[in-house]
Amino acid sequence: MRGLLLKILVAVLLLPSAAFATDPLPSWNDGPAKQTIIEFVEKVTKPGAPDFVPVPERIATFDNDGTLWCEQPMPVQFYFALDRVKSLAPEHPEWKTKEPFASLLKGDLKTALAGGDQALLELVMATHAGMTTVEFEQIVRDWIATAKHPKTGKLYTEMVYQPMIELLTYLRANGFKTFIVSGGGIEFMRAWAERVYGVPPEQVIGSSAKTKFEMRNGQPVLMRLPELNFVDDKSGKPVGINQHIGRRPIMAFGNSDGDREMLEYTQGGSGARFMLLVLHDDAEREYAYGPAKGLPDVKLGAFTQALYDQAKKNKWTVVSMKGDWKHIFDFQN
Amino acid sequence: MRGLLLKILVAVLLLPSAAFATDPLPSWNDGPAKQTIIEFVEKVTKPGAPDFVPVPERIATFDNDGTLWCEQPMPVQFYFALDRVKSLAPEHPEWKTKEPFASLLKGDLKTALAGGDQALLELVMATHAGMTTVEFEQIVRDWIATAKHPKTGKLYTEMVYQPMIELLTYLRANGFKTFIVSGGGIEFMRAWAERVYGVPPEQVIGSSAKTKFEMRNGQPVLMRLPELNFVDDKSGKPVGINQHIGRRPIMAFGNSDGDREMLEYTQGGSGARFMLLVLHDDAEREYAYGPAKGLPDVKLGAFTQALYDQAKKNKWTVVSMKGDWKHIFDFQN
Repeated sequence: MRGLLLKILVAVLLLPSAAFATDPLPSWNDGPAKQTIIEFVEKVTKPGAPDFVPVPERIATFDNDGTLWCEQPMPVQFYFALDRVKSLAPEHPEWKTKEPFASLLKGDLKTALAGGDQALLELVMATHAGMTTVEFEQIVRDWIATAKHPKTGKLYTEMVYQPMIELLTYLRANGFKTFIVSGGGIEFMRAWAERVYGVPPEQVIGSSAKTKFEMRNGQPVLMRLPELNFVDDKSGKPVGINQHIGRRPIMAFGNSDGDREMLEYTQGGSGARFMLLVLHDDAEREYAYGPAKGLPDVKLGAFTQALYDQAKKNKWTVVSMKGDWKHIFDFQN
Repeated sequence: MRGLLLKILVAVLLLPSAAFATDPLPSWNDGPAKQTIIEFVEKVTKPGAPDFVPVPERIATFDNDGTLWCEQPMPVQFYFALDRVKSLAPEHPEWKTKEPFASLLKGDLKTALAGGDQALLELVMATHAGMTTVEFEQIVRDWIATAKHPKTGKLYTEMVYQPMIELLTYLRANGFKTFIVSGGGIEFMRAWAERVYGVPPEQVIGSSAKTKFEMRNGQPVLMRLPELNFVDDKSGKPVGINQHIGRRPIMAFGNSDGDREMLEYTQGGSGARFMLLVLHDDAEREYAYGPAKGLPDVKLGAFTQALYDQAKKNKWTVVSMKGDWKHIFDFQN
């Protein structure tokens, strides 16, 4: 009996370690995208290798809308603002005749958004300001605990891409610090990013409103003002990355023109670099938009043909959701 | 022989663990300050204890000038700006007649600073802008590698407080994330904070200039603009903390009126909190200023009597450098 145990032990010890290694990206189909990710991580984490990167410099930045979770038919934060308008409407009788509120309350999104960025800004300021940061966090937490996607009926926090969650976990297991760098609101995301993505508040970078320190009823609070502080989109992304991280990422992940400068900035550093764009080409399991053939382009979250061409020219990895992802959402498993 | 080994083994295992514990704060004299720090850390890190704080929420914020390193006779960054004025002067003949530059170049600091905040701002903008973030980092690194304190002749990076370095290390060993929250320039500090304090760039918060993303010679860079972005001082500190960390600290350390709001904000959270002010009362080993009896107050780095009174009232720990610190600088050992 003892001899048998010994034989088993020796056999186990002699097995190549690969036999025990589990696939770190099980929701990714085998193919060039998965392969380049794993090859990159292996070469920058192998001590002594020419491309080795010390742990403190392993910075990876991720866009959020359309890169980590679904941004269609409209970005989630827009639905949050819409629900806020509805619940605040009784306190704002003037909204009945004031755009974009009047059209929103009538359910006419198209007219409401005809005002462009200015209309969106007014909408955000009216619904995201006038309370303390702590109160706002609670409002977001309460909302996201129950709010559901208009098409799938799933919680928005279930509309996260399983392959990207695996990627975040895989990178962290390899000494990477993972950051979110999004055009979305920094405090909107922080309210749930740790629970959903494992990304703590101090690693979330986003657009923000100004805040003001004051004593209210003897308590020190930060009031959210109806004033824009920073837009973390397009050329704002490298600025936000430098302001918050102070290092250039070595990996960056996006899905739209809003991420172009972040990917360019990442690639511009010395040493090994990895840039990736998610292409939404799966109308069946998610949505198809951008350069996916024959599909209408959308203003929000645009992946233009020019970006696609630049990705090919700069050797950025383009992930086909349809071809590269075995599963998109966990609930589809 | 085997019996003896067993006896030794049992004896070692039964020794109280305290017998092996080394003092985590050897440069601190035994006394109430050291004791309250250790008691606080023990109660928030003990699983199951009523004041237990999970690791992700163990956030400690430190002011820099006068809290982690010497800020007398003037803050270090001022000497950096002064040396920059001298080296840039040949390119700026107009500075010979323009304040504050004219007086600075003549060595007349008093007249140069008579212009107050506006003069300081002009000085900073003229010396800290017009280059890429990467170039600026290199300028700071080169300067701080050789620049010496006017009184001690030591490198500025040797003018750090040994007891505070031990405290940073002790807190990190207990699961705390340590942040610098300073009125000083964020990119000035990031150039050396990791090497000197063990605080990585993404955990340094400070005042900043605006930056702009652009392609220069085909390379993506961030240019430093001569325009103020954020002042991380006084009521700006809670704003900066919220912007960068997104959580309220549970420990905060400062030494002047510029830190008051950070300490108030820290204390305003729920659960156990720890606030500390460093009192500069050691004219022999460092400097004595602020409310230390019989000494002239200074404008920069003021620890006013009002702050001292507030500290006593709010039960903030006030550290006497003279009484509580066995060593101040490592080179004094």
